[in-house]
Amino acid sequence: MQDRFREECGIVGVFGHPEAANLVYLSLYALQHRGQESAGIVSAKDDILISHRALGLVADIFNEDIIRRLEGSAAIGHNRYSTSGQTLLKNTQPFVVEYGRGGLAVAHNGNLVNAVELREQLEGQGSIFQSNVDTEVIVHLMAASKGERTVDRVVAALSQVRGAYSLVFLTPHELIAARDPYGFRPLVLGRIQDKDSVVVASETCALDLIGATYEREVEPGEVLRVSASGVESFRPFPTAPRTSCIFEYIYFARPDSRVYDRNVYEVRKDLGRQLAREQPAEADIVIPVPDSGVPAALGFAEQARLPFEMGLIRNHYVGRTFIEPRDAIRHFGVKVKLNAQADVLRGKRVVVVDDSIVRGTTSKKIVQMLRHAGAAEVHMRISSPPTISSCYYGVDTPTSAELIASENSTEGIREFITADSLGYLSVRGTYNFLKNGEGNGFCAACFTGRYPVPVSDPGRTHQLVLFEAKER
Amino acid sequence: MQDRFREECGIVGVFGHPEAANLVYLSLYALQHRGQESAGIVSAKDDILISHRALGLVADIFNEDIIRRLEGSAAIGHNRYSTSGQTLLKNTQPFVVEYGRGGLAVAHNGNLVNAVELREQLEGQGSIFQSNVDTEVIVHLMAASKGERTVDRVVAALSQVRGAYSLVFLTPHELIAARDPYGFRPLVLGRIQDKDSVVVASETCALDLIGATYEREVEPGEVLRVSASGVESFRPFPTAPRTSCIFEYIYFARPDSRVYDRNVYEVRKDLGRQLAREQPAEADIVIPVPDSGVPAALGFAEQARLPFEMGLIRNHYVGRTFIEPRDAIRHFGVKVKLNAQADVLRGKRVVVVDDSIVRGTTSKKIVQMLRHAGAAEVHMRISSPPTISSCYYGVDTPTSAELIASENSTEGIREFITADSLGYLSVRGTYNFLKNGEGNGFCAACFTGRYPVPVSDPGRTHQLVLFEAKER
Amino acid sequence: MQDRFREECGIVGVFGHPEAANLVYLSLYALQHRGQESAGIVSAKDDILISHRALGLVADIFNEDIIRRLEGSAAIGHNRYSTSGQTLLKNTQPFVVEYGRGGLAVAHNGNLVNAVELREQLEGQGSIFQSNVDTEVIVHLMAASKGERTVDRVVAALSQVRGAYSLVFLTPHELIAARDPYGFRPLVLGRIQDKDSVVVASETCALDLIGATYEREVEPGEVLRVSASGVESFRPFPTAPRTSCIFEYIYFARPDSRVYDRNVYEVRKDLGRQLAREQPAEADIVIPVPDSGVPAALGFAEQARLPFEMGLIRNHYVGRTFIEPRDAIRHFGVKVKLNAQADVLRGKRVVVVDDSIVRGTTSKKIVQMLRHAGAAEVHMRISSPPTISSCYYGVDTPTSAELIASENSTEGIREFITADSLGYLSVRGTYNFLKNGEGNGFCAACFTGRYPVPVSDPGRTHQLVLFEAKER
Amino acid sequence: MQDRFREECGIVGVFGHPEAANLVYLSLYALQHRGQESAGIVSAKDDILISHRALGLVADIFNEDIIRRLEGSAAIGHNRYSTSGQTLLKNTQPFVVEYGRGGLAVAHNGNLVNAVELREQLEGQGSIFQSNVDTEVIVHLMAASKGERTVDRVVAALSQVRGAYSLVFLTPHELIAARDPYGFRPLVLGRIQDKDSVVVASETCALDLIGATYEREVEPGEVLRVSASGVESFRPFPTAPRTSCIFEYIYFARPDSRVYDRNVYEVRKDLGRQLAREQPAEADIVIPVPDSGVPAALGFAEQARLPFEMGLIRNHYVGRTFIEPRDAIRHFGVKVKLNAQADVLRGKRVVVVDDSIVRGTTSKKIVQMLRHAGAAEVHMRISSPPTISSCYYGVDTPTSAELIASENSTEGIREFITADSLGYLSVRGTYNFLKNGEGNGFCAACFTGRYPVPVSDPGRTHQLVLFEAKER
Repeated sequence: MQDRFREECGIVGVFGHPEAANLVYLSLYALQHRGQESAGIVSAKDDILISHRALGLVADIFNEDIIRRLEGSAAIGHNRYSTSGQTLLKNTQPFVVEYGRGGLAVAHNGNLVNAVELREQLEGQGSIFQSNVDTEVIVHLMAASKGERTVDRVVAALSQVRGAYSLVFLTPHELIAARDPYGFRPLVLGRIQDKDSVVVASETCALDLIGATYEREVEPGEVLRVSASGVESFRPFPTAPRTSCIFEYIYFARPDSRVYDRNVYEVRKDLGRQLAREQPAEADIVIPVPDSGVPAALGFAEQARLPFEMGLIRNHYVGRTFIEPRDAIRHFGVKVKLNAQADVLRGKRVVVVDDSIVRGTTSKKIVQMLRHAGAAEVHMRISSPPTISSCYYGVDTPTSAELIASENSTEGIREFITADSLGYLSVRGTYNFLKNGEGNGFCAACFTGRYPVPVSDPGRTHQLVLFEAKER
Repeated sequence: MQDRFREECGIVGVFGHPEAANLVYLSLYALQHRGQESAGIVSAKDDILISHRALGLVADIFNEDIIRRLEGSAAIGHNRYSTSGQTLLKNTQPFVVEYGRGGLAVAHNGNLVNAVELREQLEGQGSIFQSNVDTEVIVHLMAASKGERTVDRVVAALSQVRGAYSLVFLTPHELIAARDPYGFRPLVLGRIQDKDSVVVASETCALDLIGATYEREVEPGEVLRVSASGVESFRPFPTAPRTSCIFEYIYFARPDSRVYDRNVYEVRKDLGRQLAREQPAEADIVIPVPDSGVPAALGFAEQARLPFEMGLIRNHYVGRTFIEPRDAIRHFGVKVKLNAQADVLRGKRVVVVDDSIVRGTTSKKIVQMLRHAGAAEVHMRISSPPTISSCYYGVDTPTSAELIASENSTEGIREFITADSLGYLSVRGTYNFLKNGEGNGFCAACFTGRYPVPVSDPGRTHQLVLFEAKER
Repeated sequence: MQDRFREECGIVGVFGHPEAANLVYLSLYALQHRGQESAGIVSAKDDILISHRALGLVADIFNEDIIRRLEGSAAIGHNRYSTSGQTLLKNTQPFVVEYGRGGLAVAHNGNLVNAVELREQLEGQGSIFQSNVDTEVIVHLMAASKGERTVDRVVAALSQVRGAYSLVFLTPHELIAARDPYGFRPLVLGRIQDKDSVVVASETCALDLIGATYEREVEPGEVLRVSASGVESFRPFPTAPRTSCIFEYIYFARPDSRVYDRNVYEVRKDLGRQLAREQPAEADIVIPVPDSGVPAALGFAEQARLPFEMGLIRNHYVGRTFIEPRDAIRHFGVKVKLNAQADVLRGKRVVVVDDSIVRGTTSKKIVQMLRHAGAAEVHMRISSPPTISSCYYGVDTPTSAELIASENSTEGIREFITADSLGYLSVRGTYNFLKNGEGNGFCAACFTGRYPVPVSDPGRTHQLVLFEAKER
Repeated sequence: MQDRFREECGIVGVFGHPEAANLVYLSLYALQHRGQESAGIVSAKDDILISHRALGLVADIFNEDIIRRLEGSAAIGHNRYSTSGQTLLKNTQPFVVEYGRGGLAVAHNGNLVNAVELREQLEGQGSIFQSNVDTEVIVHLMAASKGERTVDRVVAALSQVRGAYSLVFLTPHELIAARDPYGFRPLVLGRIQDKDSVVVASETCALDLIGATYEREVEPGEVLRVSASGVESFRPFPTAPRTSCIFEYIYFARPDSRVYDRNVYEVRKDLGRQLAREQPAEADIVIPVPDSGVPAALGFAEQARLPFEMGLIRNHYVGRTFIEPRDAIRHFGVKVKLNAQADVLRGKRVVVVDDSIVRGTTSKKIVQMLRHAGAAEVHMRISSPPTISSCYYGVDTPTSAELIASENSTEGIREFITADSLGYLSVRGTYNFLKNGEGNGFCAACFTGRYPVPVSDPGRTHQLVLFEAKER
């Protein structure tokens, strides 16, 4: 059972490069941490679109032969976790269809909060759906639009949907990128100088790998059309207060990425420093829960002037699942990923820094494993506030009832995880520190339960009536 | 390169049996000769449809695990060759969609002659297509219909299409079978007595294997609805003169099937007898081109009072393709399927009976192989008239220009295939003999070029704009 | 459960042809009926041997890429059923090893009766075995030999084994063929004229496909060495009375093959004629159990002057296994292969001709299926004598106890299979007719229980102590 | 092209546990860093051995079904890189054979220096080899031995071989572990307390994962026999000066392992501290080449009192290979694994700590990537001496000519990698520091060219004469 919040998707688009699909493939590899269930690429050549999508990791899905067949100078790609839509092949993205205007592909990071009602309206008018991803609603709205240009149809469709979206569309002759007016999910714009190629991607680490230069964010509410005529920017929607997802800083994004125009690693170190100020501890060493906890632990150790040590070693050959003996091994679930170093920990008072606690079960196993390895005291420090509410804007979270902090006080959680002390970063501290107080740029719904875009019927999704005998 | 006409599809439906999918699977296996590119089954359980479709042979596509997951007491199935729509996974049938009324699956044998114009109309109104099989047009017409019952929507859709179709539809709670008013393609109705189960299938050999009793043909122009309330028959279309495909008798159907209410093996023996009357030969033995030529050769030998021998032996382990050495083997293409028996043929004047000549290249190799094995004379006899025109009603035929008989006299063909003599059955003889003259029950378009249903734009099909990188 | 005797293997070797592996591959395809569990090819190029072996059918195991990698101008191949050695990948042939003299491959048709004791001796001296096929004993005997030339080591090894063997050996520079002194299993020699290439194969149908000319049998007790110096023949063993397997004529060999210097189809027709003389029947039609029963049924019909009809139609798309419904279908096991034609059989007195009865269960289902289809009387005729004893010379037979004829009279069998009458060919009739009485050329052990080569410990095989977790 | 020394193998054995194979599988997963080309497990149940071996990673090779079939209470396992023997399926280990004494499996970490001459002797006596791994020689020596007990045969065989070996043998009823008298490769002994199970493994991280307690090293020259009678220790060989491989500390072993009785992470930090003493640098920050350089960089930063930063971020989803665009990306080969953080590095004087330089090409790319990201100065520090000689004791090293340090001075290397300064740890410093000077416990052949066990014919390996058409 998942004991992390999970980012649902990474998206990328390349326009105007002779090896567009290959660059998209490498970008997806750089964005692999944003979705590991499936991946896909669609390229445009002359008047056709060519696609390849499959379940699995990027490096397993694509080979030289497939990349070579994804011809053309424009392409888009997608990595996926499923928040809306089961883990089915037909739900993999980019979503690709033929409609009256020719071929159209779209890759989506985010989640729409009025997808089900729009779908029911469209079906009532004779539309036939192929999947149960909310993205398909956008495509049907485009097909039903009378707009002349594709970009007009994109605007017409997006004017009817509500929620979080960073999108890239591909037609045989243009690439369109769009970001919702709230700026929930990240999206950046870059260029490959010598080729005059345009790249859009969820994070800058994708730009770095393919040698593209970071230019700026695609702005909240902006629609960008990239074609042979260059890049055009549209601002067709009413403006809204920016409410970007703060978990990109806390956990999701790669530390070497620039997100919302700041370096993630630096932000995480800052959060660690602030955590040391708010929640100091009498201790001998500071250790991270690797790899995500490393920057915050470095910041904490620096601020607290305590030695930083790798007291937990991560095994990097982690597969999907491991076969546990019937005669169960103590702390097995955590141990296949992390090993505690007795020689480092023995007799020490240890601060262990992690980015968040979701259900608490993993934290408990880590505390116990550290004690078993000889730690004299274990002080857990978390570089974010307690998470008490589910996310409806594209993050895979347990129900509120399963979030340990929604029902328990910090002392209750400490008791559950058996730590000697437990300290979270404060909401105020987090936002003040980021110089963007609540209402000043970040969504805090998961910490506060206050949702910037109303969610009418939170639990409602479209129920599939078609199944594949093989996929269940 | 194909040197046979090819049947495009076999279809089957079972309603009211606890192991419906298993019976459909066995029926598809019995109908394997009607299509070997792909196969699929869709079953209905409660309110959902479950499908499995793949490229390959029935015995390779399905296994016990998959059959077990195809739950429910109703199911339909399809074997396929491609006449409309490329050999792509997305073009495999049964075609299955979710629309406003829930799940719907359909399996189609035949070919529509106005599918492209209907598709363009529908796309102009915002419909999004998933494939380029003409069958999908029927589904979109159903989605756009305002009919209350599914059967009303079926009738509304079929009223707008023109061409050849035998169809089975499946929804979660009913099975609908339909046959075009001309009765182009076969379709039969059977029952499994002790279960009160209903079966529809392309040929009776499917009924035989699963222990069902043959009841009657689904009549041309008939729509059958099978549900918990029993079998209802509708006749919603204007009547038309019957023009069933005669090639089912000549070559397509299994000899042990009953088609258009007559046993195929007996018809073929009769055609062989008539051939002996029309085209006698001075000879020592009669041999068939196995397996399809066996019944006609038996009829010929009986009428001509000549010994019947197996002078050509067929290899039954034929795979998709064989790797020919660069240093080519004489008659290789035919030899991997057939071997000529020198000990049987040596010094003999041989009548060799085949069902048809398409391009003539295979016939030429057979004649040469027989001579090489020692035959003194080779007299080719064909149990059908010369084929001069392409079919637009669901048979995969070469273009007219590739049909050797469209440009050559019988003497010209004889010379090409290097036989000592060549004799075809006459058109008149064929139809008179069948007691169904032209205009009295059979389509003769491939022999005469007279098409019973006008084909406005024969070469026109919908060109795909979406491709899979793996399938090309 | 198998209800046929089964040939265990087909072997082939080609020397002196630039596409040797491709010709071996095609030959194995022509010999596919002799073994369908696994196949393999080994080619020789310069000083190395290259092999490919797998479970499955020839057409599935090899592709163009693999054939291209099997470089060199000499190659041997093998099709396999398992009589000695389980169906394991390591038991597939050609068996290929590296020993002190370099690389060596061997393909074996037959069965050794003293393999286990030889193996135990060799292991006692430090030999390490890789498989449990008896063929490996020969290789170890060769490795232990002090002979200078490979052919000397072959003779040294074969002088120590007892039983049935047709063998082809391949080293980087020569091909050696050998046949046991009794001539149990067939082996023929052919040539490809224009290339001066030499071919050895189990049956002539392999020569026909690759365009080779039949020259003669490899004689019982002969060892042939084929090298750059041409073909040398050796006769190193004491002569023995010829006792070739008669089941090659009755059932195993392809009808278009020449075996023991006679055409198999003609022999089968003759057996059918003799059967009609010995076991006539009052009947209306004669039908074969296709395909193996066709020639004998033609002979029977000709002799009895009765019409020959295809009353049973065979389905040629037979896969490995079929999934039978839990609610069993009547005669299912036979029906997936054969369908009875009611229109042909209705009201008729039917003679049905088959080649043999093993357990009787299939025959019973056929009789019942014919009656169910309307036959008025069913007279079963078998073109061989009753089989009462197991074979130890390379044929896969049930134990004697499972052979219905070992415990039952003909009347008892008739009753079991529910036929109106049952007639076997007599032993005397069979052999007299073949002009080779017992002791005059054929082994009759399965009909008489008299074994020409003593079998000391019939049930004894080497028990494996090594298993693969995947293959069980 | 490989730019690291590579450990060739990890081995493990478990005796006396009901889920032995499952524990071996988890241990192999913990030892995955020691070999990623192939893996295998052999278990013992009653009188048989059951094996599964394949190319690939542990988590991909084994599934629940396979683990369940590896029955029995004893098992051994192996991870592999190939130093002797090509990457072929038949060369995967554990090596498993049947010989006169029954089944025997063996897993080997190390390399024999007299394997080829022993093999030639054995082949001259009639032995037949299955592979070209040197391990097979040991098995044939055992088969040829007249020893009564398996342990006697093990000793007899090992008395004849020379070189580096840590070995585990498995027979149906005992497990035997052995380590060469020099103690080249590591091997530890542990126990699972509550089960009284015995575990041997290359490193203690395997013990940690399965909940076993570390007991001691298997001593150099020790042979351990584990059976139902308990653990017996033998010392059958003359003693030799200990020359354990120091690269286990520098790079190979997992940091959380205890090797040669010291914690690897602590040793690496110590090497980093010593490096800072020997090779200080004027700089602003210290960064590691992750992950292997992290402990030494922490030690360096601590000693030098400089801030430690993660200036290079590693991508953990690395696949086998990545498809580079034809229009090459700058520093591509390194960039798919590491990304340089411009926001951390900009304008800084950077010390970058790595464990070794092999060819120098990777180091050069790292230096350039750091500069490209804005580093003002780049000072490369290496936590081991220059490597100038190939290893013949089980480590995969390039030839001496390919080792940049064998032909170049430190200044020459600095120039090649374009660093502002370059500093290696000294040989003396390394060994003194470890309190085990040369001749006092460690092999220094790769740094000094002085080989503790003479290598008569270094380049000589057995050349295969058998190939698989698929594996080349």
